Amino acid sequence: VQTARLETFSDGVFAIAATLLILEVRVPEEGSLTNGLLHLWPSYLAYGISFATIGIMWINHHALFAQIGRVDRTFLAINVLFLMVIAFIPFPTEVLARNLHGDARQAAIFYGLVNVLMAAMFSAVWFYAAVGRRLIAEDADPRVVSGISRSFAPGIPSYALATLSAYLSPWLAVALFGALAIFYALESTIFSRTGVPAPDAADPG
Amino acid sequence: VQTARLETFSDGVFAIAATLLILEVRVPEEGSLTNGLLHLWPSYLAYGISFATIGIMWINHHALFAQIGRVDRTFLAINVLFLMVIAFIPFPTEVLARNLHGDARQAAIFYGLVNVLMAAMFSAVWFYAAVGRRLIAEDADPRVVSGISRSFAPGIPSYALATLSAYLSPWLAVALFGALAIFYALESTIFSRTGVPAPDAADPG
Amino acid sequence: VQTARLETFSDGVFAIAATLLILEVRVPEEGSLTNGLLHLWPSYLAYGISFATIGIMWINHHALFAQIGRVDRTFLAINVLFLMVIAFIPFPTEVLARNLHGDARQAAIFYGLVNVLMAAMFSAVWFYAAVGRRLIAEDADPRVVSGISRSFAPGIPSYALATLSAYLSPWLAVALFGALAIFYALESTIFSRTGVPAPDAADPG
Amino acid sequence: VQTARLETFSDGVFAIAATLLILEVRVPEEGSLTNGLLHLWPSYLAYGISFATIGIMWINHHALFAQIGRVDRTFLAINVLFLMVIAFIPFPTEVLARNLHGDARQAAIFYGLVNVLMAAMFSAVWFYAAVGRRLIAEDADPRVVSGISRSFAPGIPSYALATLSAYLSPWLAVALFGALAIFYALESTIFSRTGVPAPDAADPG
Repeated sequence: VQTARLETFSDGVFAIAATLLILEVRVPEEGSLTNGLLHLWPSYLAYGISFATIGIMWINHHALFAQIGRVDRTFLAINVLFLMVIAFIPFPTEVLARNLHGDARQAAIFYGLVNVLMAAMFSAVWFYAAVGRRLIAEDADPRVVSGISRSFAPGIPSYALATLSAYLSPWLAVALFGALAIFYALESTIFSRTGVPAPDAADPG
Repeated sequence: VQTARLETFSDGVFAIAATLLILEVRVPEEGSLTNGLLHLWPSYLAYGISFATIGIMWINHHALFAQIGRVDRTFLAINVLFLMVIAFIPFPTEVLARNLHGDARQAAIFYGLVNVLMAAMFSAVWFYAAVGRRLIAEDADPRVVSGISRSFAPGIPSYALATLSAYLSPWLAVALFGALAIFYALESTIFSRTGVPAPDAADPG
Repeated sequence: VQTARLETFSDGVFAIAATLLILEVRVPEEGSLTNGLLHLWPSYLAYGISFATIGIMWINHHALFAQIGRVDRTFLAINVLFLMVIAFIPFPTEVLARNLHGDARQAAIFYGLVNVLMAAMFSAVWFYAAVGRRLIAEDADPRVVSGISRSFAPGIPSYALATLSAYLSPWLAVALFGALAIFYALESTIFSRTGVPAPDAADPG
Repeated sequence: VQTARLETFSDGVFAIAATLLILEVRVPEEGSLTNGLLHLWPSYLAYGISFATIGIMWINHHALFAQIGRVDRTFLAINVLFLMVIAFIPFPTEVLARNLHGDARQAAIFYGLVNVLMAAMFSAVWFYAAVGRRLIAEDADPRVVSGISRSFAPGIPSYALATLSAYLSPWLAVALFGALAIFYALESTIFSRTGVPAPDAADPG
């Protein structure tokens, strides 16, 4: 009950931010339509990476909230700031899509910096709740809680390194952004180091 | 509980993708307004077909989930990919609407290919859950489950044939896309071959 | 349970369609900002009438669903068609806002025709469920059900008359569209003729 | 139950209005990308203030509804009008972002007037429900209810003063809009004067 209404608002922002991404893909106006559609591949790529990133953040946000038993005003405010970054993602996505054939390096750095900020705000959401078990549910398993805390360690450095790699090559950076999304989706590092079943894999009942 | 949060996010993406379709219908800028509004019929047609398609996918998505008892990480990731295709639909819809008086064939093929991809991802969602009853609810009727599995057979070939028909005539392809939407809406083939009542038609309680 | 998932999707489409209306209000580009903002009054007016209309349809849609106990496939399909019209409203709203200083008559007629279609589809939703109590809940009060049925009588003629009044004066038509929204909001005609309390006014418990 | 469906619609409008704000941040078209992104700071600032404002209104809206036990038709209509103002916010936000380097004073006054209207409508929502405990839940603590009523006192004057300060300096006004958002987020004035725990800080159960 305490967390349900926060989750409803969060679900809305995640779903809308992900769906608004499509607005950055613009119909080609001139030349052969097939050529125009093929030349839009940077838009498709940016759409795919950002949609996957938001989708995975949504999955993990829900998994975190399964451990949280109550909320306070500060936690609500931190969550609003986190959602402010999630809802911002369509903008760097469009910047990346528009500039992959031009200022690709600057666009990739901007895209990466927003991802670093997203990872930092997500850590703030979790650690505000977890430090001293401030908002953790009474019946939450301590091993799951400390496992989640440990799993946050690589998030910010990974996105920071991917961002810095744009100085070597913007394409490398984009490849790393995509790899990070796939990695978090398939490996679910956040929840697999605890030695206990992931919340999502438990039997119903 | 297990599937509820996935359904909330999915409901959001379906509803937003369907409602964003209207943004492709642009106010005519010059000439008589009435003429301009009449000449927009390709936009209305594309809006109607895509809205119906997303609406029907949403109905069927819910019907499938009535058979599913738990979720795992891979299933969540497959669903995010499926929703990525659903949220993409406003783009090929706008491509189709803008080009029905021009490159109609190429636009219809692009629109059709996205529908084939949608049908393929929807099959992936179902068969990942259904093979070996991996995620099927304990109390799900095996006849309903196998009936749903059989009902997926015509999906990909139908959309593929409609797409290929654009080489004969793009208008034929558009007519087939519309017919497929109406067919799936009214016939509900997916659920009528099982010999048991469709889940939606059951009495409450 | 039967109707809950349909209501979730409907809530989403109503909320998104209402919120997307703001996209038709465009920032003035030239001249004094204050003058530009004042000259946008047709946009504010169209925004207000359409937002109120969608909001009231949402209230009434929920009130109808309180009487409905189960759904079938045809009912789902009719609802998708009804929501298709709701999600379409941002377009005639923008047409009206852009043309109140120009082709006001044609714009008002187009706006009115979409409202007539909306009222017709809303009637189809109700009467498909109500005729022979096909989908009415077992415990629904017959006086409430027949009261709702009677209250649908003035809907289509009212919007049709408002539309036709545009031939006298488009301003009259716009005034009538606004009056209809206010009338349905404050009088709640649909539910006040039954001699029983409106569902929303009942005590909780 | 009585208020749940109103909250669902409200959650949707809050979440969509907040997420649509990103559409006012436009990709720079010419010159160095980094320079262009830096020069967009008025857009980022307006986005941040408006997102925080909508987020805080959403938190407070939910806290109010925790005290409300039933709804009537007039209350629903007032809420639709309130949500009409919330959904309008993306427009003054874009006006502010586009004009901070130009007609900053006029833009800040317009932005402020919409905030005054928002505060006034929010007061109307609360006092319609609270006067004579018209719609207050039976078990609501009278001290909480009167504490909320007192906490509304500074809202309209604060936003009015911030708006008027634009005649001294538009930058002062923007700083005050930001300060008001932070103040309401962190101080939660509305709920801290009652001498009882804020609803959100209570233990679950």
